[in-house]
Amino acid sequence: MPQLTASIIIIGNEILSGRTQDVNIQFIAQRLVNLGIRLESVTIIPDVHEIIIGTINNLRKKHTYIFTTGGIGPTHDDITSKAVAAAFNLPFEPHSEAYKILLNFYGKKAFTPARQKMTFMPRGAILIDNTVTSAPAFQVENVYVLAGFPKIMREMFKNLEITLKIGDPIFSNSTHCHIAESIIAQGLEVIQQQHPCLDIGSYPFYESDTNNGTSLVVKGTKKSSIDTAIIKIEQLIIDYGGTPLTDNEFQRPQKT
Amino acid sequence: MPQLTASIIIIGNEILSGRTQDVNIQFIAQRLVNLGIRLESVTIIPDVHEIIIGTINNLRKKHTYIFTTGGIGPTHDDITSKAVAAAFNLPFEPHSEAYKILLNFYGKKAFTPARQKMTFMPRGAILIDNTVTSAPAFQVENVYVLAGFPKIMREMFKNLEITLKIGDPIFSNSTHCHIAESIIAQGLEVIQQQHPCLDIGSYPFYESDTNNGTSLVVKGTKKSSIDTAIIKIEQLIIDYGGTPLTDNEFQRPQKT
Repeated sequence: MPQLTASIIIIGNEILSGRTQDVNIQFIAQRLVNLGIRLESVTIIPDVHEIIIGTINNLRKKHTYIFTTGGIGPTHDDITSKAVAAAFNLPFEPHSEAYKILLNFYGKKAFTPARQKMTFMPRGAILIDNTVTSAPAFQVENVYVLAGFPKIMREMFKNLEITLKIGDPIFSNSTHCHIAESIIAQGLEVIQQQHPCLDIGSYPFYESDTNNGTSLVVKGTKKSSIDTAIIKIEQLIIDYGGTPLTDNEFQRPQKT
Repeated sequence: MPQLTASIIIIGNEILSGRTQDVNIQFIAQRLVNLGIRLESVTIIPDVHEIIIGTINNLRKKHTYIFTTGGIGPTHDDITSKAVAAAFNLPFEPHSEAYKILLNFYGKKAFTPARQKMTFMPRGAILIDNTVTSAPAFQVENVYVLAGFPKIMREMFKNLEITLKIGDPIFSNSTHCHIAESIIAQGLEVIQQQHPCLDIGSYPFYESDTNNGTSLVVKGTKKSSIDTAIIKIEQLIIDYGGTPLTDNEFQRPQKT
């Protein structure tokens, strides 16, 4: 099966201004790993109509799936849905099913024009359930248009991911040590060369002057090759006087 | 003065696999706001030579400044510096000043080939001090090539930012309320239309069933217009039975 790939487009001035710390990328990235879908890029762009159109059209032909987050709410700065319609050259109009859902949720009196705005979608959009605040997300071809608010986005993603194709699983194993990566770098490169099908990553950590070192992460589609490489890396660590630590023995720093 | 702009390129498989939560984007974004430099996009790409070259060459002509993070360490997966040299069609060779710094830091005996690798840069690169772990970052034309490890990146950024041009300051003011954004959306749109030079952002928050609402952020280059818009927004909140909250009165949710 050909490799399934994905790209994320984060739409929102609040990320580019530094007001908001994005947490959607990591969530989607981790879910995609579990689905065997390779995340190949992430692009963060402002709430600008032409830029959204251009970015979507540049990426949607290159990847199996595109996920956008942000800009599908009721306010004037929520312009993603309209831009997606323009990107696909589709009419932008109320979605009858979404209209029913929101009419039922708000009731006739409170279903204001601003709330009705959330029912406008590209014609033919497939709805994605929003089990948090009711207003649905949607899919057009291979582009999934999700909310930016993390709690809502996560629920939407869980609701859509059952419809995604599943790729060859990507396995991963890791080991850690209290040795600087520059010390084991040469030996590590030899191991990488011996296993060209694997992706060996070296990530330094410095929790404190006494708790620092390197995490080594091996990824690939063949479990047996990964295990072989991990054994070699553990031996390399031992050769340099260190002790290989398992994930359980090692508390990865959460904030750095 | 023409608007100064920037783009960030985050280079690292660990972000795309969801292993690591990026925190560099927000840091750089906030510093750029203070410098009056508009961050126009962020791209996250894997550690792949051709992709790094293509992304840098696609972006460096479009923005005043490009900042890359990640991939300048001593291991085999640190390939950014070489790709930057290729992007600029420059020889990739030991930088004499960087060589002296690292030789002095490690001492002759411990200055292994892996550590010497960190002195390889595009010819003519301008060094950026690394006050944490010594190995310098560098600049080629308008491209600043920084470490990915947040603590190191932040120090590098602080060391380089004194060399950046400073743009017209971007001012910002905000107000908050315990009203859903869909209720004030129409009134907000009118205010946005009255102030086309301002950027009014509406950001919902849901801390709990009793603590939720909307943050309204107004940005622009004219302080007086921002203040006028904020007064109008506060009146809008009052019209809908709410109470405008200042930043001090409002505890923005840090995790959502």
